[in-house]
Amino acid sequence: MYKQNIKDNVRVVLSHTTHPGNIGAAARAMKTMGLRHLYLINPRHFPDPQAVAMSAGADNLLNEAVVCGSIDEALQGVVFTVAMTARLRDICLEIQQPREAMPELLQQAAAQPVALLFGTEMSGLTNEEMGKAQLLVNIPANPDFSSLNLASAVQIICYELNLAAQIQSAIVPNVRPAPYERVEGFFTHLEKTLYEIGFFTTQNPARLMQRLRRLFARARLEQEEVNILRGILSVTTGYNAQLKARYREEQCSRTSEKT
Amino acid sequence: MYKQNIKDNVRVVLSHTTHPGNIGAAARAMKTMGLRHLYLINPRHFPDPQAVAMSAGADNLLNEAVVCGSIDEALQGVVFTVAMTARLRDICLEIQQPREAMPELLQQAAAQPVALLFGTEMSGLTNEEMGKAQLLVNIPANPDFSSLNLASAVQIICYELNLAAQIQSAIVPNVRPAPYERVEGFFTHLEKTLYEIGFFTTQNPARLMQRLRRLFARARLEQEEVNILRGILSVTTGYNAQLKARYREEQCSRTSEKT
Repeated sequence: MYKQNIKDNVRVVLSHTTHPGNIGAAARAMKTMGLRHLYLINPRHFPDPQAVAMSAGADNLLNEAVVCGSIDEALQGVVFTVAMTARLRDICLEIQQPREAMPELLQQAAAQPVALLFGTEMSGLTNEEMGKAQLLVNIPANPDFSSLNLASAVQIICYELNLAAQIQSAIVPNVRPAPYERVEGFFTHLEKTLYEIGFFTTQNPARLMQRLRRLFARARLEQEEVNILRGILSVTTGYNAQLKARYREEQCSRTSEKT
Repeated sequence: MYKQNIKDNVRVVLSHTTHPGNIGAAARAMKTMGLRHLYLINPRHFPDPQAVAMSAGADNLLNEAVVCGSIDEALQGVVFTVAMTARLRDICLEIQQPREAMPELLQQAAAQPVALLFGTEMSGLTNEEMGKAQLLVNIPANPDFSSLNLASAVQIICYELNLAAQIQSAIVPNVRPAPYERVEGFFTHLEKTLYEIGFFTTQNPARLMQRLRRLFARARLEQEEVNILRGILSVTTGYNAQLKARYREEQCSRTSEKT
């Protein structure tokens, strides 16, 4: 089934979950909505009997869960990541409601793996983790009491995903989005380049990189585009190196003229 | 605030909940979406420390929860009840998805109390309980694993209600829907009348009453309409009684003629 294939490209990633019961309850929530790929970044207790108890029959998802040591490991091969946030103040990325975001996630999932990223029970995702996503999603809630249980948040998102899948047309987009590690590779290259060319001397590097991440997140980079951008970066530093070398040469010859 | 008033007319009714933790988690789910009126029909354990623990700060809802001995008590004064079902086979009432149902619930709530009715963890609501509602709601789920956790189901419904409240226009409908006890009074009167006039002799009474409940549930009876219908019933039995009396009189006179 085509629709089932799309959902099989969706992974739920839980970062640093404290309570194993929440992992089990999240697995149950996923399975009720037809999802099955669970990734856990450094869970405090896993595997754990409480997780099995709370999964209430979704223990197959727990058995097949992928435990990762870092977010980079969990997002390996992923072309589109949606990160959850309870805050509306984050300016580094576009924020949408679940209903708006799920159709795009599914469209991306038609081709390659996508991820739904959830933070810890107490503090959610770090800014660094959110920076790895292309889109932030906020579940609209009571402003005076907005702290949803982790598994409840997973339930709502998977429910919206399931609804979107039911009405999703079978149009496969004609693009080849870049996988996570290629996009991150580009950002590393970009930052290094900006240092090298002396761009960061008068700016706040972290802040600036966040703005640049935001820009490229909106763009949903394709593989070919990453190639092009990195090509530009390589040429930039190459040109810069040539300039430096020429400057050094000129200085040397000037010095030798004086002596 | 107008919107807050509407939500204040919504009560969440949990029938015969087994695990107190689920009551607490349901209270938390309600509070995150701005709801606060919790009604419990014969909970197995309540109050209970597990409920408080799982409410995670929504314990004010638990303190104010109304514990009832029957569904009739819990739905007292309610003009519109939406009952949850995991089954799609129920033919006795209209079944909608949460997204379709919540706008109507809110519209009804503009005037008077409405209820969201949830059954037990294991078996949901009984047919009798569902028969007390005007509308059934089914949360679309994985057909091979459709058993949502009770608090997760409450979370999804309250989430949809909150979304609907955000876009609900402030149009107060120009109707006076009949409260629960008046509608039930009408059904009792109707059934009694149908017995009295001999309608049930060749029919299955329970099945037939279910069909009639379905019909009137779709109609969303107004107070004035209940008055009219009951007026008709009274006249019917009155007429019937007159007929019987006349028949008896005639028989008597015939008998006395013979003697």
